[in-house]
Amino acid sequence: MKKTFLTIVAVVTVFILLISLRTQATSQTPTLWGLYENNLKTAKYVDLTHAFNPTIPVWSGFKKAKFRPTVAGTDIPNYIQTGQEYTYKAHGFIATGYELPTDQYGTQLDPPAHWNDYGATISDLPATYAVRPLVVIDIHEKVAVDSGYHATVGDILAWEKKYGRIPKGAVVMIRSDWYKKWSNVERFNQKPFPGITLDALKFLHQQRNILFHGHEPLDTDTTPTLEGEAWLLRNHYTQAEGVANLDRVPETGALVTIGFAKPEGGTGGFARYIAICPSNWSHGVSVIEAPGAPLPKQRYQLQRDTNGVLKPTQS
Amino acid sequence: MKKTFLTIVAVVTVFILLISLRTQATSQTPTLWGLYENNLKTAKYVDLTHAFNPTIPVWSGFKKAKFRPTVAGTDIPNYIQTGQEYTYKAHGFIATGYELPTDQYGTQLDPPAHWNDYGATISDLPATYAVRPLVVIDIHEKVAVDSGYHATVGDILAWEKKYGRIPKGAVVMIRSDWYKKWSNVERFNQKPFPGITLDALKFLHQQRNILFHGHEPLDTDTTPTLEGEAWLLRNHYTQAEGVANLDRVPETGALVTIGFAKPEGGTGGFARYIAICPSNWSHGVSVIEAPGAPLPKQRYQLQRDTNGVLKPTQS
Repeated sequence: MKKTFLTIVAVVTVFILLISLRTQATSQTPTLWGLYENNLKTAKYVDLTHAFNPTIPVWSGFKKAKFRPTVAGTDIPNYIQTGQEYTYKAHGFIATGYELPTDQYGTQLDPPAHWNDYGATISDLPATYAVRPLVVIDIHEKVAVDSGYHATVGDILAWEKKYGRIPKGAVVMIRSDWYKKWSNVERFNQKPFPGITLDALKFLHQQRNILFHGHEPLDTDTTPTLEGEAWLLRNHYTQAEGVANLDRVPETGALVTIGFAKPEGGTGGFARYIAICPSNWSHGVSVIEAPGAPLPKQRYQLQRDTNGVLKPTQS
Repeated sequence: MKKTFLTIVAVVTVFILLISLRTQATSQTPTLWGLYENNLKTAKYVDLTHAFNPTIPVWSGFKKAKFRPTVAGTDIPNYIQTGQEYTYKAHGFIATGYELPTDQYGTQLDPPAHWNDYGATISDLPATYAVRPLVVIDIHEKVAVDSGYHATVGDILAWEKKYGRIPKGAVVMIRSDWYKKWSNVERFNQKPFPGITLDALKFLHQQRNILFHGHEPLDTDTTPTLEGEAWLLRNHYTQAEGVANLDRVPETGALVTIGFAKPEGGTGGFARYIAICPSNWSHGVSVIEAPGAPLPKQRYQLQRDTNGVLKPTQS
């Protein structure tokens, strides 16, 4: 009996050792490169950004952008004269110049300084504006019935009932499907258009401590004083505007990368948001499908259209 | 004896079950939100981007940017007249206008279309330009001895000997510490300045299948034909220029987010690169240290300087 008992003890000990070794191996924090290899490489990427050009919707109080070929800023002997256009043929390269009368243009990231003379500018945003959990609150069916519908605290709580508490520091985007009207420049900015109530914004920031919210129209709400945007920026919060493709990302479980041009002291962001969705998601492309290098050749030669926008054009 | 044997079998069975359950739980692919919570939230973020303004270094063949306050594009009765400036006091908000004579400005992402009339433009880049492994090849000691030093295949192989093979799809940045001369506008663009050899670029793309490489100067090399940039863009690859702070990130093990303004058909990127470093890294800030909402209040009121740049200024 004593021998048998010892055998049991030995077997149990070996198994405990095995378990502890195994647990140690699997619970070790994976490296960031390991995360990329195992999770981010196979994830599905969806661009939430409109490309901007001289014809997109903009608030009536602002002028639209102009695009034009870059010209020489100085004489370069035997090469180019001041004011001459760089061309592929003569100089080997081209570049593009932009007249941007406002930074409230296209898909944006609004820093507090837009409405707040003591607020952070776009170049003050910390490096932690990089990648965050993405929450998508879907009001598109309500908006289909009432174009002027504004998201409420109730809509947020309904999301939480389904998926759990909104993570601290998340980016919360309001899906209205309004972005599909982007090419209908006249209609896009006309009231009624969807928004988010001030109460909902306060709830998201004060009760859930999100990083920022985003919406598809170019305004946060349709109140005469723009009370939502005013409250956000005057209280040192940021927001995303003119976001696209929220119908192509999951309501929970995705991440979002936050990119933008970085003019010093800028008051608006020429932004680029990319959703990173689970690898079994039905939309988007993975790094394996779209590695990005080398990039595909254009079907036709690039030529500027009448607005100065470079496009592949059949001659 | 039979009873004892059964006991052993029972104990062993229970332990095997426990092990298998435990293994299943820990080896299950973590969710993207789990990755954020456990790894990205505590990671250290380092901005690799220069803020751009009207005084930064630019190639002599281009003109510099102009920044100015946004003015009304139209009359709005009882509010503002065409051409009047928006002010915090009168209108509650301001915006900023930019004249950008070239998209080869500041920290950039060059798409093939810059040098290739059949190349992808900035708005053609796939959504998978979002987050990638970051490799940093350090030549700063060689550059300290010889300002015109260009990174070689040997420098890349030395990195690989130390850290292993460069991951496919990575972003490879060449650290020269040249970015520290950014405020020395005259010197920054003058030869000799550091670069990367054409052989090294070919090796990175053809042998290692990287996404793109990046460098701190505004040119890839100092050859008269800019042979490196020409080869890259004509072969449908992209590149990063004017990158900063590579001395503050690890040579291996970090990720990088890739952000940029998205003008349709653009030939250069007003980019923003953020390195995501392991949580025990000595530089950078974590989401816990710099949550980003609410943002800190400026010490002084924002006012435009003589270049139109908005800055906190003591009255």
